[in-house]
Amino acid sequence: MIFYYAPGACSLAPHIALQQSGAQFESRRVDLHRGEQTTDEYLAINPKGRVPVLITEQGTLTENSAILFYISQLFPQAGLAPVNDPFALAKVQEFNNYLASTVHVAHAHGPRGYRWADDQAALVAMKAKVPMTMTAGFQLIEDELLEGPWVMGEHYSICDIYLYTLSRWLEGDGVNTSLLPRVIDHRHRMEVLAPVAEVLQVEGLV
Amino acid sequence: MIFYYAPGACSLAPHIALQQSGAQFESRRVDLHRGEQTTDEYLAINPKGRVPVLITEQGTLTENSAILFYISQLFPQAGLAPVNDPFALAKVQEFNNYLASTVHVAHAHGPRGYRWADDQAALVAMKAKVPMTMTAGFQLIEDELLEGPWVMGEHYSICDIYLYTLSRWLEGDGVNTSLLPRVIDHRHRMEVLAPVAEVLQVEGLV
Repeated sequence: MIFYYAPGACSLAPHIALQQSGAQFESRRVDLHRGEQTTDEYLAINPKGRVPVLITEQGTLTENSAILFYISQLFPQAGLAPVNDPFALAKVQEFNNYLASTVHVAHAHGPRGYRWADDQAALVAMKAKVPMTMTAGFQLIEDELLEGPWVMGEHYSICDIYLYTLSRWLEGDGVNTSLLPRVIDHRHRMEVLAPVAEVLQVEGLV
Repeated sequence: MIFYYAPGACSLAPHIALQQSGAQFESRRVDLHRGEQTTDEYLAINPKGRVPVLITEQGTLTENSAILFYISQLFPQAGLAPVNDPFALAKVQEFNNYLASTVHVAHAHGPRGYRWADDQAALVAMKAKVPMTMTAGFQLIEDELLEGPWVMGEHYSICDIYLYTLSRWLEGDGVNTSLLPRVIDHRHRMEVLAPVAEVLQVEGLV
């Protein structure tokens, strides 16, 4: 398999999941700052112009939570999702879809507000609200969704990997992390796991 | 099961999926215009203050694409997803996650820009860009993602139900639908299906 990522982007999550599942894969870095995702060559791989992308023998997959789901299904022995329990698996999807469609979207209004408005003052107004929307998104995780010790309770899963990835953005998004002790404790426990530490090294984040 | 929806909102998709799967469920209308989703009573059911919600014997589920996924898993005989093929199932998730985190989000900047900015001029700027972002989101579906005759090719799935739901918003979002003949043809083929017609009636949309 070939995996396309940008250092520190949300693609960090499937990168960790691949590493943790024992998958054989080659990783390729995409330079978002130089606009590599908008080149004809990259758009031929992913017309959405985004990371992550996973190229498998059966075809190409995009969308973070779909790739995480696929990895968990393809390597059931890694135990990254409750693959044989429809309700528990739907709860995993619920959490990850919340991260994708609410929390990641809240974050994106800082660096990529131009997706949703052209006016310069509007971009400033969007950026100004990011600390509030990211705090709200994570407060729900802190208070309700993170069961403990892992997101889904006793069982580690792709939810933990994805949560870790987005929780790395908190300080940069101006969130007061002292309000989120359980999320920060989770982050500390994640970054000492061997596959996580290895991927952080590969992506040049440590 | 108990299902919470708002007429014409994205909850129309799981509403149709429940009807099509032959599930036993009771549907309850949430009046978003009167702010019912922000009452203490509703927040006790779903602290996110959103629809849809599905209450099952095993617990509560939120997030549209997670609920759709769950229905397809719980009623495999309805054939709403390729439940035994990990890659094909991941492709279903990829499509639905694109609708949830890109297309629905693009739409939301019209009626609900206040989620991402407080400044009145910024809300106007966001609203102004909705026709462009919705057109871009649907153009990718028209040109690349909708295989035909159904989203995933020969097999009807929860992708068709979700696409239909969001494609109902196109005219209201100022999209020139003459650019999207395949999407519009799909919409016409969807709305004559008996379970779709029944749910449109229940939600008061026809």
